[in-house]
Amino acid sequence: MSDDQELGITESKEYNTGEWYAEVVQKAGLANYGPEGMSGFIVTRPRAYAVWERIQSYLDGLFKETGVQNAYFPMFIPESYLEREKDIVEGFDPEVAWVTHAGRDELEERLAVRPTSESIIAPYLSRWVRSHRDLPLRVNQWASVVRWEATETKPFFRTKEFLWQEGHTAHATDEDAWDETLTRLDQYQSVFEDLLAIPVLRGAKPEHDKFPGADTTTTVEALMPDGKSVQSGTSHHLGTSFAEAFDITYTDEDEESQIAHTTSWGLSWRSMGALIMTHSDDQGLVLPPTVAPEQVVVVPIWQSDTKEKVLEYAEGITEELEEAGVRVELDDRDERNPGFKFNEWELKGVPVRFEIGPNEVDDDVITVVHRPDGESKEVDRENVAETVREEFDEVYAKLYAKAEDNLEENVREADSRADILGTIGQHGGYVKAPWCGDEECETEIKEQIAAEIVMVPLDDEEAEIHEGDSCAICDGDAVETAYFAKTY
Amino acid sequence: MSDDQELGITESKEYNTGEWYAEVVQKAGLANYGPEGMSGFIVTRPRAYAVWERIQSYLDGLFKETGVQNAYFPMFIPESYLEREKDIVEGFDPEVAWVTHAGRDELEERLAVRPTSESIIAPYLSRWVRSHRDLPLRVNQWASVVRWEATETKPFFRTKEFLWQEGHTAHATDEDAWDETLTRLDQYQSVFEDLLAIPVLRGAKPEHDKFPGADTTTTVEALMPDGKSVQSGTSHHLGTSFAEAFDITYTDEDEESQIAHTTSWGLSWRSMGALIMTHSDDQGLVLPPTVAPEQVVVVPIWQSDTKEKVLEYAEGITEELEEAGVRVELDDRDERNPGFKFNEWELKGVPVRFEIGPNEVDDDVITVVHRPDGESKEVDRENVAETVREEFDEVYAKLYAKAEDNLEENVREADSRADILGTIGQHGGYVKAPWCGDEECETEIKEQIAAEIVMVPLDDEEAEIHEGDSCAICDGDAVETAYFAKTY
Ligand SMILES: [Zn+2]
Ligand SMILES: [Zn+2]
Repeated sequence: MSDDQELGITESKEYNTGEWYAEVVQKAGLANYGPEGMSGFIVTRPRAYAVWERIQSYLDGLFKETGVQNAYFPMFIPESYLEREKDIVEGFDPEVAWVTHAGRDELEERLAVRPTSESIIAPYLSRWVRSHRDLPLRVNQWASVVRWEATETKPFFRTKEFLWQEGHTAHATDEDAWDETLTRLDQYQSVFEDLLAIPVLRGAKPEHDKFPGADTTTTVEALMPDGKSVQSGTSHHLGTSFAEAFDITYTDEDEESQIAHTTSWGLSWRSMGALIMTHSDDQGLVLPPTVAPEQVVVVPIWQSDTKEKVLEYAEGITEELEEAGVRVELDDRDERNPGFKFNEWELKGVPVRFEIGPNEVDDDVITVVHRPDGESKEVDRENVAETVREEFDEVYAKLYAKAEDNLEENVREADSRADILGTIGQHGGYVKAPWCGDEECETEIKEQIAAEIVMVPLDDEEAEIHEGDSCAICDGDAVETAYFAKTY
Repeated sequence: MSDDQELGITESKEYNTGEWYAEVVQKAGLANYGPEGMSGFIVTRPRAYAVWERIQSYLDGLFKETGVQNAYFPMFIPESYLEREKDIVEGFDPEVAWVTHAGRDELEERLAVRPTSESIIAPYLSRWVRSHRDLPLRVNQWASVVRWEATETKPFFRTKEFLWQEGHTAHATDEDAWDETLTRLDQYQSVFEDLLAIPVLRGAKPEHDKFPGADTTTTVEALMPDGKSVQSGTSHHLGTSFAEAFDITYTDEDEESQIAHTTSWGLSWRSMGALIMTHSDDQGLVLPPTVAPEQVVVVPIWQSDTKEKVLEYAEGITEELEEAGVRVELDDRDERNPGFKFNEWELKGVPVRFEIGPNEVDDDVITVVHRPDGESKEVDRENVAETVREEFDEVYAKLYAKAEDNLEENVREADSRADILGTIGQHGGYVKAPWCGDEECETEIKEQIAAEIVMVPLDDEEAEIHEGDSCAICDGDAVETAYFAKTY
């Protein structure tokens, strides 16, 4: 609506991905940067927030079907609580924003603005869990968290405050906690594959890159078009570390006291960053119909002598779609010509355009244009509310197929340090290599090409290539198949 | 779930309202107090959060039908921004939580944790509004805010952090802004009257009690059973004060620059406090079916020889209700007897109970019990999904009628200081009196009996009693009809 949307995208996705992304975010009206004195913060504008609401609604639905209840915990955590689990405090201390004063008074104990809430939620899990009958206990909150990273701001990918959900559960056994961890990983995968049209890889983080205090951190990773991986949702099997630090115990069926096993899992608006980055192009934002604020824009094309009949026809179609629950916008502005409107709605990411001129009225048809590839076709006016669903499915399938091709083409193997460096240097993407499990071998790659091990396959899932092999970097015995990639 | 729900309510609503309320909140599993070092904060447990989600969903629906878009703004506000509108900083400065450090570094400028977001939203309204075509511009956020009040914690009524929505709009004319202000007040009234079964009074705050910077603050006020008023939602006509401080201007149709007129409006989880306080009783929580997490609990009553047929019948009913979208819980626990279950579900506020014993099975009926008054009746098993909706309506009507009686009986008139003091002292509730508009006259009442002017009628709405009369306190000319009440 404001003037910063008047101009088209000037940067190239292929050659200047970072600047192009920033321009799409700005010009499609998704976000603004924070005010002076608050670099690293962003304002999420309605167009982006509407997408986030659809992600929330989808994932929250999955959660509720699988026994999760929402709750809300304080946004502050007393420093002494944060210190109770030593890995947490070491992991997050450098990034914590501290509240030290309230009104004119200094606080006796300073309060962390939550960087994640294990340390404030675990003490309540401890109070709520008494007997094995209270287990499993699952709570989730939709909230914002603050991590004061010094790196450059990239809206939705890297901001000092971000929106997310964080789930926290307690279980009777290690096995139950592991099942929970994977249930949530499955649901994150579904967000990407069934809602955002982005295929992902699933795996575990290497030991040295786990969530602080976790036994295992699992992740879904999405490959961006510039060859970098985005960690898109993580689910942590916390074992008994938090249960021990915060005394989460229960009495079993034999009235014996047992320690609980906990998990936590989170998906943030980084998923929205991956969405924007994956599908958009040099004309602007591209969104799948599943999450687009407007799924269809109807653009009437008239001369003065055809205006009345064209508008009437376009209005009838718009009403029929609205009644069928389609999110549709009729752009009947007098002061703009059709070409301007096409460009504007392409910039804003509306996945399907209906063009309605006098010919369409006479022939009782609609010209349908797909945003991702510009494919144009005529469809019958009749049953438009059904037809449009098929168009949505087609557009979704196109977006998914393109992202899938990108992923499939960009998982390569390597068996030596030179091979890893050369392959990532030339192609980006993922490079699988046998690995000894030692962080030092990752460090060597990291220092030379800024790629890291983003995951190792989960035992039962990905084909492994390290069996009987030796580490591609140090030649020691390989125990894992490491996926190297540059990351966001 | 945990042992703190095992015991019934011991305090009396009538004689010990404060302690009774705290006990209901605790024992019905609605909230816990914050940890050590964080007095004034609460943890919102799933049972309360589910109610809040229904309030959100209802109000958000009304917003979206009337042109409001959701967005999200940073949770921090630089001190210099807070200082730009002088009334805001004076009004909130004593209650602000300050972030002064991030990681190990002291910040150059300290950041306020938002107590309300006008000062961070207005600068963006300024950027987004250019032309009259951008108006009206309406954004809303669902967020938490922090106000460091030193008073005693009362869950949902008075906490240092609370959940709310805050809407912020810009308009071309003063009249448009005033219409907006009243549209939102209407919607707040609807939340109370159509969703929470609580009739409210509508009015404006007196001049000296307006929102900082506002031209007019409007309010809906709910009367609690102990005779105190709860300010339950406020909608502010901000005039041009924020537009001037933050330069929110637009070019009109003649290309002239004009100053915009803004509004803001908020409803918090205080509405949930009013809900709990209004309907609950000495057996525990009472909720209307509109917002209850479980609308019906089915309690089977069996002996060993009837268990199978009773359970089967109860399961069939439960399934039929679930399929019809009713929120129903079948309590088939073996280890608890029916009397225990009745008490527990009464404590938890389930509005309708189905009792199913062998007689019900034989006669093809259901015994239905209403939570608010214990009314019990037999209904046919057939068409239970329809019947239960009627029962919900009846329960809602009973709750509303009782709250309405309380309100109607407790609006009284007074024409002298002694009369005001005596009437509030004896009855509580609202006392209407002619008032000169001078804060000092309120102060006299406040000092003697801790009652204040909670509202004056909006011009076109409430019958006024001050015309041609003199102020009940100072005998000066009366210009308003003041509603005095004690408050939460
Ligand atoms: Zn190695
Ligand atoms: Zn007076």
